[in-house]
Amino acid sequence: MKIGRFKYGERTIFGIIKGREIVPVKETRVSDLMESITPTDEVIPIRETKFLSPTRPSKIVAVGLNYKAHAEEMGKPLPEEPLLFLKPSTAVIANKMRIVLPSMSNRVDYEGELAVVIGKKCRKVTPEEAKEYILGYSCFNDVTARDLQQKDVQYTRAKSFDTFAPYGPWIATDIDPIGLKITTKVNGEVRQEGNTEDMIFSPFELVSFISQVMTLLPGDVIATGTPPGVGPLNEGDRVEVDIEGIGTLINYTVKES
Amino acid sequence: MKIGRFKYGERTIFGIIKGREIVPVKETRVSDLMESITPTDEVIPIRETKFLSPTRPSKIVAVGLNYKAHAEEMGKPLPEEPLLFLKPSTAVIANKMRIVLPSMSNRVDYEGELAVVIGKKCRKVTPEEAKEYILGYSCFNDVTARDLQQKDVQYTRAKSFDTFAPYGPWIATDIDPIGLKITTKVNGEVRQEGNTEDMIFSPFELVSFISQVMTLLPGDVIATGTPPGVGPLNEGDRVEVDIEGIGTLINYTVKES
Repeated sequence: MKIGRFKYGERTIFGIIKGREIVPVKETRVSDLMESITPTDEVIPIRETKFLSPTRPSKIVAVGLNYKAHAEEMGKPLPEEPLLFLKPSTAVIANKMRIVLPSMSNRVDYEGELAVVIGKKCRKVTPEEAKEYILGYSCFNDVTARDLQQKDVQYTRAKSFDTFAPYGPWIATDIDPIGLKITTKVNGEVRQEGNTEDMIFSPFELVSFISQVMTLLPGDVIATGTPPGVGPLNEGDRVEVDIEGIGTLINYTVKES
Repeated sequence: MKIGRFKYGERTIFGIIKGREIVPVKETRVSDLMESITPTDEVIPIRETKFLSPTRPSKIVAVGLNYKAHAEEMGKPLPEEPLLFLKPSTAVIANKMRIVLPSMSNRVDYEGELAVVIGKKCRKVTPEEAKEYILGYSCFNDVTARDLQQKDVQYTRAKSFDTFAPYGPWIATDIDPIGLKITTKVNGEVRQEGNTEDMIFSPFELVSFISQVMTLLPGDVIATGTPPGVGPLNEGDRVEVDIEGIGTLINYTVKES
């Protein structure tokens, strides 16, 4: 099932995606969606809605160098444990929204990633238990000011600009996250191609590891790392992150005014 | 004025601290407190309440190496720009609560810091404008698993464990943040002594710099860096961060069970 969050007139709704239509559901909170997803009788054309990010994460925990080939392209050794960093909730934007290229940076890169969406408060779980805490999977673009990342060493500034966390278009609730093709395109041209089976740490291992450190809350997002092929975005680009079984997250770039 | 957040029976209240008593105020949201602080007729003994963190930050933006003498003790060059990192909201604990020393680390350090508390949504402000967006100042302990910080290079894991962000006891709303004595004690013994006038970047410069990157929201906290003298905590310690004109944040350590 694919479920998203939408603005429809004055209403904010969760809805099941059925082709070009949305069926609003009765549940209004992420934690409720873990228990049941109850369709209403209503049907709304997607084109009459505005995409919202599928959840409003209290935090985004991202993982560096989780694909072997990407670690190699960055000239980094393979991590023995997941390398964690945080992106702030203020960076989140939804499908179809604009990524603002900040004047503080001369090189902003796309990084297409599989997002794990937490559905239930989660603390110190095993990889085997992790699945019970995951609502589903979505697409994520870990937009990064590469020049500032290199300058600062700490990733925070480079990855925390407003609009640097495109997330959507919706959540796929019942897919196996291992073995999914992931593709990033810029202006229709393929730039990143990978498969989630090439992750060093699986989504379940990541949820388990992170939950040993910090409590994960409903709606929180884990960005699971990017495959090789990262590269720059320029003004006026259209960037797409497409994941098999989920869908395509589309965003446009604009220069900071 | 000193204003804190407290649990009193089933109620969660903001209240003005008057010696050993609290006068609840009419305002219930941080953003309202920027406009007015309106005392009620009620008076409550502090000992009948439970301390809560003064706000519930959507994010904590922390600054590394912001005291010259601390940069020197860590063997690091002085930063040309503020060095940012994030701590998650799930790490926040209030005054009198316990810091849990995780089994994943063999060396957990205290870092006493001045906290800037944001009162109003803030984006791209100048240092001169910053003051209008600050509700006040509090004490903060940037608890850090030093061994994991060194291992990971990225600070995130080392600084994100649950309970690693003690914050309180309350907010002082009308003090000048420059020229305040800051002291950290462990079991009554002074370990860190500094003065906020020795910061490389002032609180106003920090708010301005961070707001060029990310939008700051009411309740967000900026941890402004630690003076020299950082060192380890052990099981059963009492750690205090005392800042002139604000008060004392007291926490106790316990081993992860």
